[in-house]
Amino acid sequence: MVEYRSLRWMDGTLRMLDQRLLPHELKYLDFTDYHDVAKAIKDMVIRGAPAIGAASAYGLALAALHSKAKDTGGLRKELDDAVIVLKAARPTAVNLAWAIDRVMSKVAGTRSNRIAELQMIILQEANDIVDEDIHTDKQIGLNALPLVPDNATFIHHCNTGALATIEYGTALGVIRTAHEHGKKVFVYVDETRPRLQGARLTSWELKQLGIPHAVIADSASGYVMKYKKVDLVTVGCDRIAANGDTANKIGTYNLAIVARAHCVPFYVVGPTSTIDLSTPNGDMIEIEERPSTEITHVGKEQITPDDIEVFNPAFDVTPASYITAIITEGGIAYPPYEKSLPEQVERAKAYWAVRKTS
Amino acid sequence: MVEYRSLRWMDGTLRMLDQRLLPHELKYLDFTDYHDVAKAIKDMVIRGAPAIGAASAYGLALAALHSKAKDTGGLRKELDDAVIVLKAARPTAVNLAWAIDRVMSKVAGTRSNRIAELQMIILQEANDIVDEDIHTDKQIGLNALPLVPDNATFIHHCNTGALATIEYGTALGVIRTAHEHGKKVFVYVDETRPRLQGARLTSWELKQLGIPHAVIADSASGYVMKYKKVDLVTVGCDRIAANGDTANKIGTYNLAIVARAHCVPFYVVGPTSTIDLSTPNGDMIEIEERPSTEITHVGKEQITPDDIEVFNPAFDVTPASYITAIITEGGIAYPPYEKSLPEQVERAKAYWAVRKTS
Repeated sequence: MVEYRSLRWMDGTLRMLDQRLLPHELKYLDFTDYHDVAKAIKDMVIRGAPAIGAASAYGLALAALHSKAKDTGGLRKELDDAVIVLKAARPTAVNLAWAIDRVMSKVAGTRSNRIAELQMIILQEANDIVDEDIHTDKQIGLNALPLVPDNATFIHHCNTGALATIEYGTALGVIRTAHEHGKKVFVYVDETRPRLQGARLTSWELKQLGIPHAVIADSASGYVMKYKKVDLVTVGCDRIAANGDTANKIGTYNLAIVARAHCVPFYVVGPTSTIDLSTPNGDMIEIEERPSTEITHVGKEQITPDDIEVFNPAFDVTPASYITAIITEGGIAYPPYEKSLPEQVERAKAYWAVRKTS
Repeated sequence: MVEYRSLRWMDGTLRMLDQRLLPHELKYLDFTDYHDVAKAIKDMVIRGAPAIGAASAYGLALAALHSKAKDTGGLRKELDDAVIVLKAARPTAVNLAWAIDRVMSKVAGTRSNRIAELQMIILQEANDIVDEDIHTDKQIGLNALPLVPDNATFIHHCNTGALATIEYGTALGVIRTAHEHGKKVFVYVDETRPRLQGARLTSWELKQLGIPHAVIADSASGYVMKYKKVDLVTVGCDRIAANGDTANKIGTYNLAIVARAHCVPFYVVGPTSTIDLSTPNGDMIEIEERPSTEITHVGKEQITPDDIEVFNPAFDVTPASYITAIITEGGIAYPPYEKSLPEQVERAKAYWAVRKTS
């Protein structure tokens, strides 16, 4: 098994695995300038809602550490600039803004006029985000265990493994936990056009973990549900609105509709940091459109004729009514989500409060 | 506009457009041996149910013309061998067997012991299949006109244009007819993984025809139906069972489920030769599984890790209950299809009887 991590902080440098090169090459890139981190997020060197959250927190740490400001007033101003740049990198996943806001509220909460102290506070908060993410994912996997049959066939969309987080995974973490607890699991991995995160990343991660799986075209999910035994669908999430509507990688909505037609449970899996109680419903979530080359080309291979129109939304919104349950580190939220999601958030807060004091 | 045709008979040679090279190269291949025709069908040099039907009929013509048999007894034996080879090329589309059976019933119906006469009968029947296909497609387009709004947005799956037929198209022919009759049409072309017939072929054909369109990922159809105006979905068919269940390119079933969830009419379009009244329902249709390289590679670009499992069914079956209507050259069949499909077949026969005597 190859050891890998989506990102790692190393003495003033943010090292990120270049996910665009997987599964063919395991290459790390080092970052010292937050502008480059923002660009790397935009270009999908790193992707996955929790991973880009952590990357953006370290982006602020880089801004602070490499600042040439003479006083904390100047540093705070530079940090405000960095917030704007980093938040603009990708609009849909709330974890990015969540991580940045979390770091910045620590900054706002300290009156220190020592630059070194501010730097330390920022770096500590980024490190905490990373540590918590790893524990969060493992708790999510444990929380989901009762929902997974002993002999379980999954369909999984996009990539939600160690690559999308720090080192364990959310929806893929559920599969991993079930596997580690001795359940017999098989995963139909949909390839997830256009960026092929399923075919490239999830298949690679499952191979590292020794979990049996088969890659399918996204459009074959209905066939698989009809003719093969499928027990459950697990997907990640980029933003969960207060009513449970969930933005996630394009194709999640189709998969949810198809699962419903076959009475297959459809689970959204993610940390509570993905829950955005300030967004009442999915219609309010901004959906990023990405470059047409993601559709017209695969690697160097051009598929389409020249100069054709493409429509390439990167995400879609699955209405809460299609979601059987939402699994977080706080437990399992069932409808009505307006009620259960705030409870999850509270339970997760209590969980961390206990952990931090123990 | 580029002039093109999926196939053409030229003095003892079958010339076929190599669709694997489109949209980048317009290259024709010449065939004189039916074994090569069978291989070309299997390898998808030519694809599309009506097109492979016509190609297999000409395969028999090649078998007859290039036979070294000394008498018609020997020739008939060789033809029986050719039938087995050609029918084995691809199992799901009924048009292939239909065209072969049609030619062979002409052979069976003649008692001539002149080799040249048998050869002529076979070639004439193959030519008739091609001529009828062109007229059939145009009639289908006219029959569908009342179902198409004056300002119509389509979602179209796979390729069902001139390339999938002879020179006009079925589901794409409906769009083409609407366009030629002055309706304002826009087409969301789903790319149709794994072979990308939508992105490669349909987009290319629509570009030739000057019909506005945008290519989307297959999994974006739900997003498009939810946030854009979509009036109807049109798809082709490889085999329609007596109860209306329809085998077609993988992803058709998902698209039908998603269309139903958005109350978008879902139309299956094809010639009556695709209706297989001897197959009671979709569960009886053999579904071809194709090589894993179609999933693991796009052109020369490898997507997945090495040595992973793939599940790659080439077709799926859409239950009749998801199909708003089936449009053929005989008219528009509505449920219950057990009743309306035999009527379509009879009406189409009557249509050809009138045409041939007039």
